[in-house]
Amino acid sequence: TWTCLSCVSSSAAVMSSVLQKLVSPMTSGPAEPPRNKVTVVGVGQVGMACAVSILLRVRPNDTHTHTHTHADKLRVLGLIPRRTTYLVPPGDYAVTANSRLVVVTAGVRQQEGESRLNLVQRNVNVFRSIIPQIVKHSPDCTLIVVSNPVDVLTYVTWKLSGLPKHRVIGSGTNLDSARFRYLMAERLGIHSTSFNGWVLGEHGDTSVPVWSGANVAGVNLQKLNPDIGTDCDKEQWKDTHKAVVDSAYEVIKLKGYTNWAIGLSVADLTESIVKNMSRVHPVSTMVKNMYGISEEVFLSLPCVLNSSGVSSVINMTLTDDEVAQLRNSADTLWGIQKNLKDI
Amino acid sequence: TWTCLSCVSSSAAVMSSVLQKLVSPMTSGPAEPPRNKVTVVGVGQVGMACAVSILLRVRPNDTHTHTHTHADKLRVLGLIPRRTTYLVPPGDYAVTANSRLVVVTAGVRQQEGESRLNLVQRNVNVFRSIIPQIVKHSPDCTLIVVSNPVDVLTYVTWKLSGLPKHRVIGSGTNLDSARFRYLMAERLGIHSTSFNGWVLGEHGDTSVPVWSGANVAGVNLQKLNPDIGTDCDKEQWKDTHKAVVDSAYEVIKLKGYTNWAIGLSVADLTESIVKNMSRVHPVSTMVKNMYGISEEVFLSLPCVLNSSGVSSVINMTLTDDEVAQLRNSADTLWGIQKNLKDI
Amino acid sequence: TWTCLSCVSSSAAVMSSVLQKLVSPMTSGPAEPPRNKVTVVGVGQVGMACAVSILLRVRPNDTHTHTHTHADKLRVLGLIPRRTTYLVPPGDYAVTANSRLVVVTAGVRQQEGESRLNLVQRNVNVFRSIIPQIVKHSPDCTLIVVSNPVDVLTYVTWKLSGLPKHRVIGSGTNLDSARFRYLMAERLGIHSTSFNGWVLGEHGDTSVPVWSGANVAGVNLQKLNPDIGTDCDKEQWKDTHKAVVDSAYEVIKLKGYTNWAIGLSVADLTESIVKNMSRVHPVSTMVKNMYGISEEVFLSLPCVLNSSGVSSVINMTLTDDEVAQLRNSADTLWGIQKNLKDI
Amino acid sequence: TWTCLSCVSSSAAVMSSVLQKLVSPMTSGPAEPPRNKVTVVGVGQVGMACAVSILLRVRPNDTHTHTHTHADKLRVLGLIPRRTTYLVPPGDYAVTANSRLVVVTAGVRQQEGESRLNLVQRNVNVFRSIIPQIVKHSPDCTLIVVSNPVDVLTYVTWKLSGLPKHRVIGSGTNLDSARFRYLMAERLGIHSTSFNGWVLGEHGDTSVPVWSGANVAGVNLQKLNPDIGTDCDKEQWKDTHKAVVDSAYEVIKLKGYTNWAIGLSVADLTESIVKNMSRVHPVSTMVKNMYGISEEVFLSLPCVLNSSGVSSVINMTLTDDEVAQLRNSADTLWGIQKNLKDI
Repeated sequence: TWTCLSCVSSSAAVMSSVLQKLVSPMTSGPAEPPRNKVTVVGVGQVGMACAVSILLRVRPNDTHTHTHTHADKLRVLGLIPRRTTYLVPPGDYAVTANSRLVVVTAGVRQQEGESRLNLVQRNVNVFRSIIPQIVKHSPDCTLIVVSNPVDVLTYVTWKLSGLPKHRVIGSGTNLDSARFRYLMAERLGIHSTSFNGWVLGEHGDTSVPVWSGANVAGVNLQKLNPDIGTDCDKEQWKDTHKAVVDSAYEVIKLKGYTNWAIGLSVADLTESIVKNMSRVHPVSTMVKNMYGISEEVFLSLPCVLNSSGVSSVINMTLTDDEVAQLRNSADTLWGIQKNLKDI
Repeated sequence: TWTCLSCVSSSAAVMSSVLQKLVSPMTSGPAEPPRNKVTVVGVGQVGMACAVSILLRVRPNDTHTHTHTHADKLRVLGLIPRRTTYLVPPGDYAVTANSRLVVVTAGVRQQEGESRLNLVQRNVNVFRSIIPQIVKHSPDCTLIVVSNPVDVLTYVTWKLSGLPKHRVIGSGTNLDSARFRYLMAERLGIHSTSFNGWVLGEHGDTSVPVWSGANVAGVNLQKLNPDIGTDCDKEQWKDTHKAVVDSAYEVIKLKGYTNWAIGLSVADLTESIVKNMSRVHPVSTMVKNMYGISEEVFLSLPCVLNSSGVSSVINMTLTDDEVAQLRNSADTLWGIQKNLKDI
Repeated sequence: TWTCLSCVSSSAAVMSSVLQKLVSPMTSGPAEPPRNKVTVVGVGQVGMACAVSILLRVRPNDTHTHTHTHADKLRVLGLIPRRTTYLVPPGDYAVTANSRLVVVTAGVRQQEGESRLNLVQRNVNVFRSIIPQIVKHSPDCTLIVVSNPVDVLTYVTWKLSGLPKHRVIGSGTNLDSARFRYLMAERLGIHSTSFNGWVLGEHGDTSVPVWSGANVAGVNLQKLNPDIGTDCDKEQWKDTHKAVVDSAYEVIKLKGYTNWAIGLSVADLTESIVKNMSRVHPVSTMVKNMYGISEEVFLSLPCVLNSSGVSSVINMTLTDDEVAQLRNSADTLWGIQKNLKDI
Repeated sequence: TWTCLSCVSSSAAVMSSVLQKLVSPMTSGPAEPPRNKVTVVGVGQVGMACAVSILLRVRPNDTHTHTHTHADKLRVLGLIPRRTTYLVPPGDYAVTANSRLVVVTAGVRQQEGESRLNLVQRNVNVFRSIIPQIVKHSPDCTLIVVSNPVDVLTYVTWKLSGLPKHRVIGSGTNLDSARFRYLMAERLGIHSTSFNGWVLGEHGDTSVPVWSGANVAGVNLQKLNPDIGTDCDKEQWKDTHKAVVDSAYEVIKLKGYTNWAIGLSVADLTESIVKNMSRVHPVSTMVKNMYGISEEVFLSLPCVLNSSGVSSVINMTLTDDEVAQLRNSADTLWGIQKNLKDI
């Protein structure tokens, strides 16, 4: 049988004479429901990194952060005051009820030689057992999908959830952009928050660094070096984007070590939504009817995130090349999505 | 006519072509109501210190913090991102609607030679124009009273509000206790959070330092020095409490300089309530039927503060002397309260 | 005679038997000198706001923050754990020794009808009694000047200190830029940290908003509206800069209320320096030989701030008009500076 | 050959014309050495959890946090602005130079059927290749040992380092106490920071919960229930300590999941030392000549931690039983230590 530590404590408390002697109650009736509950689905390294990063960065003290899994285990992260992170058995989604935000990190990994379509279809089957349960218990939640391939699985989640498009978000190129800013700023000798640069499109190899908009204090780097980001560039700034793409492969090679970066990145998105901040983040959103894309695919664009989810999208001024790259990604993604079953 | 800067911006935004070109909306319909709105009533030094301290410490980013006054002024604290603190004209309490917490710092000051009863009666008249308006627009709020004499005015606020007792709190001896811990810890060479000591009862000259419970890591100081806190004590630890009481006078003498301490103290209480933390604070609560007190007076005891307000009171183990002091304070306060009109 | 509360405690501690019973010392010898000491000179509203903001935002826990004044008072801000902010008597600059950063907020205010030259000359006389004393006790410090007129007084401080130019900084248009970002972002419906805009040049009426670089996610607003910031602009975005300039006047009209904004702004600069962050801020720096300016004047440009002070300046791409405004400001400032005596 | 990403960037920067066009240097000469450098030795799950927790909680922005290992890998945690965490090859301890604090998480694990003495001896051999190298490059550092069995390995580290006893600390029962407070506070319905309780002695099965000092707001729980913590106690509060001890085993059973708790616990100790806070923590310190212990063993007692390391130890008022438990642990530890070779 399954027990939650909090429940044990509560029932023990009823007969506790130390408690009766120590405390005079001033209120009766049920406690208020939590206002900023965040649920993290999946208890792998990524799920744990997301849960802890959210606890440390967002400090949603009015929040229950659950890490939900199908594994047969019960764990308590006891150090963080009054923040119980626990795993629940298969089927018990009631503990996630009334979540404001749900982060989805669950999913199966690519097997040797497996096609991308096959991987996605296997994840569709996993998500079919998770997403409807979550939405049933938290019909007003916003969903952040972290599982890879993130752009396709955000589409899958949107379809399975039945939620409006602005309430389903993929972590997309948020981490790619953070890494790009870090590496560019390091080379320029400034703090990464003082460098304004964006990586958009599909998360992974074909992500698009928007060199035309890269600037420091409004000084456009392309005006200082018109070749920046191209093969002709003698300074080879393009290498910075290459390093960002490569670090994605490192996640596989040194598994476990870059989960922290993902966790912190998701904590940033969580903060913007839970605290209704309206910060602009590069995240995966439904781009049909933008840049000539005609299918329902999710790609990363600069999105205003607040308590509504994606409240709006910034219309980037892109070059023809950059638009072509976006459309190409859209075609690739749709090629997979149109063959998926059961969504 | 009165305008709020946000409103101006919103209406300007409608016709803004830069905005139309820059942004594609993803949602329509009204924004979600704020979940953690905090209102500060009164725009004197104390009110401003409370507002800014709450913004910096609690970071209620989903919150509108209003500083409310009767003065004919409009001010914007522009630096804090997206946190508009503004003053509103007399009668316009609609902007405070749906507050989760309201901090009351308004009130008139003692005039030369004025009796305490007269001062309190003048403040009753001020509060009669404020408290019902607040409760009308935020019927589910919790109230923290900061105005002095704080214990009597918390009673007045409770009566005028019609709220249950656990939802009306006086800042009481929270600041006195913080100062006591600071001075004791300084003398012991440790951090103030590592010294456990409590000042209870009436805020001001007759506050009660509970020497019997003072400890470091569970080591009771009274066991090390049985005379601690008494006149017989050769080490004169009593001076520490005297310094706390005296610093209250300094507020008057050097007006403006200790408001910061009050602001930070109120921010602590706010954090425990808004974040549902269940931390224990010494604040003014209704003590009828405790320690043999039979009248409806407010005095500071260790209270568990969470989203319910005062969810319970810790039953302090007090000496006969300490109980006598509490009762004496209760008698004095009731002596004033019973003569108040219009509450 | 003057006493510091800490000293009193220390001497009392020597004979304290509670202390002897409670604690076994593990070390002997003197304590390490503080590594991040910050001194705030001046105890007016601005000085207090700076001191408290630095304590709350930068949390330089290894730091003694002093508020230094010539007034005959001793005050302790007791709430903040182990952070003693105290005033010292005239002449006692020894307590500021080994400061890493010194914030100067002292100075006399403009009298009715007083010329700007006369005001500055009176402040020169005040600074002659402060700056050399500070540098004598903290020869390796960095200085941030906040007193107005800030650009001239930063020059005066640089001259009186004998420090290299990268170690003397004026708060300049850092606050103007923060307000500009806030108001622009509010109108665009995004968080102020997601709007990139800069106000440079002379702090006050003649500050220069750099419309050519204003952008969101790298999208240049001037490309969306070529008239932005000019009188021809039908959307009148120029009003935003006007509101920033006007809020400077409000400081005078509603004195006391905007000190918080100044305090938070200075805390930001302090954080970048003390934490060696290399963030880019618009602050007043020596601009001789930039943009055709040939005299030793201080104006605000985007500066990289780290443990060296101003480690470098970003070369803004400015229009001819913007350069002309900078030169005009430089001429005005030099017109005052060349007539100052005793620096 | 080994390269550090920062170095690569710096050399690239030299020939970078974008950089030359963008930035005007204001300073020359070498940068200041970091003042709060923290090194984490060991790149297992515990080492990574410590490194990230320290970065997020302590924010030692003037700090380089290194995770040091013998593995042949170079990794950059790119998301955290300007905080490079990298691994270095065997023998390259120069990158750790001038550390203020070094956290040691390296070590080999117990093999099936291996005796405790054998395990410790194997770790002695590992530590002999690490500790002298660290102290050579950072002769003024403080060391925190996290590797298990922590009390013995802290002794080993102290011997190998040649540092004074107050500069070598074991993480000891800091985490046990945090868990104890969490579970007790949960049962009492209050925040864990409002419950004062201490677990001391040897880290692990034989740790000692000090029931005699457990209190809330100075109210001693033993006075409310004299049997508390004993087998006779009808409320079985002892179960709480049992749950703390059991959670140590969970670390082994569910490896990887409780590293977060360890990381946060170490971040707390780091903060007290780096920020010179003088907070009291239960950590492992040299207890010879205390409580009748005559050998050089390390056990956890409440220690005042500041920039000196362990500046003093709080003299706990312990029962005869509790003292007997401490002595018993001391005998066990000495039984192992006296047979160790090469220290």
